[in-house]
Amino acid sequence: MIRLYVEADLAAGSLVEATERQAHYLTGVMRRGIGSSVQLFNGRDGEWDGHIASTPRGRAIITVGTLARPQSADADLWLMFAVLKRDATDLVVQKATELGVSALWPVFTERTNAARVNLDRLRAIGIEAAEQSERLTIPDIRQAGPLNDGLADWPVERQLFVALERANVQTLTPVSGPAGLLIGPEGGFGQHDLAALDACRFVRRVSLGPRVLRAETAAIVGLALLQAYGWS
Amino acid sequence: MIRLYVEADLAAGSLVEATERQAHYLTGVMRRGIGSSVQLFNGRDGEWDGHIASTPRGRAIITVGTLARPQSADADLWLMFAVLKRDATDLVVQKATELGVSALWPVFTERTNAARVNLDRLRAIGIEAAEQSERLTIPDIRQAGPLNDGLADWPVERQLFVALERANVQTLTPVSGPAGLLIGPEGGFGQHDLAALDACRFVRRVSLGPRVLRAETAAIVGLALLQAYGWS
Repeated sequence: MIRLYVEADLAAGSLVEATERQAHYLTGVMRRGIGSSVQLFNGRDGEWDGHIASTPRGRAIITVGTLARPQSADADLWLMFAVLKRDATDLVVQKATELGVSALWPVFTERTNAARVNLDRLRAIGIEAAEQSERLTIPDIRQAGPLNDGLADWPVERQLFVALERANVQTLTPVSGPAGLLIGPEGGFGQHDLAALDACRFVRRVSLGPRVLRAETAAIVGLALLQAYGWS
Repeated sequence: MIRLYVEADLAAGSLVEATERQAHYLTGVMRRGIGSSVQLFNGRDGEWDGHIASTPRGRAIITVGTLARPQSADADLWLMFAVLKRDATDLVVQKATELGVSALWPVFTERTNAARVNLDRLRAIGIEAAEQSERLTIPDIRQAGPLNDGLADWPVERQLFVALERANVQTLTPVSGPAGLLIGPEGGFGQHDLAALDACRFVRRVSLGPRVLRAETAAIVGLALLQAYGWS
């Protein structure tokens, strides 16, 4: 079943148009034609069954049918991460979306090599990953900015678990309340980064285990653990 | 620090030659010359400090110096996984290696699309991932074969946790004793696969949580949880 994220409101009988990328995927890659079934979600109105109504000049117009699944609350898990090389950054956004992360905060740290991030590109990756998972929302992806700005904007009541390697800190254990994970860059945090983290009362330094993991792997592992601890 | 896996025995003062790939990486990509430091491991003799002794015609000969870290036992965690598309299979091998998996068993299931796997390629990925993590071993990667053969060869005293989605099964919880994880193909297990699994007393059906994950993500998440539960 093909699932598409749309921005339009969803209600029985309404018509919505797929984006150019989605239309290409539907009609070009997947060879779907008029009448083919599609599922739609917009992050607000639940998941709807629909079907392709028309495909004028490579576009795809979809008729909304019936509600398949009502909107439900997201996992309340955030991820702040140092921008990595392009492939690794893409993987973090894709996997974090699959794992249900509701907010992604890319940040620049002392040892971040990248100077900028293509936010539209990251958002497109988040939308595709949401379409291919079963979530009913897309993640909220912030404009990348310095770590210090991210920490200044972080809600103080939300614990931020910072994954550290080779540090004598506690292993991540079950948590309660709103939480987020912070993953540093390949080269680790610098002294100024660590001082900034120390100054934040919501920051908790934790270990993800005895192994040294690449940054993108640490993001997936840390999110998996935070979610598993929230299952209870 | 550059770490290289070699097959030769390691002892103070001995000379070892890097493979062609490693020599290219050392001298071509990383621009290291004679005298540069390198770390070596072979899965048996621990980790050794060494330095480049000579680079005749693009080769790299390394003098073994002193023992930096004695050999230690591996994590005793195995992964059996349905062969996926190439990129996804590569990611599974790379991330499982980083996470310390000691044995990788690629298998063909009813809904596996691939008919064969390049074992040399997978082993090369495992070696590179081991070099870039801090493990002192490389994973043992088996020749791919049918799921049924894998189950027949699986040691009966080793529990095999099979990750299932949309199934009314127990969530993965802490385990003791030797264990492995089995991840199915993108399309899920077929009826014959499930019947074969049912016939094995060492198989435990488990859920990795409420989310639908891609196969390669499920592998990483399942391994992360099995390892975390083994920290205690």
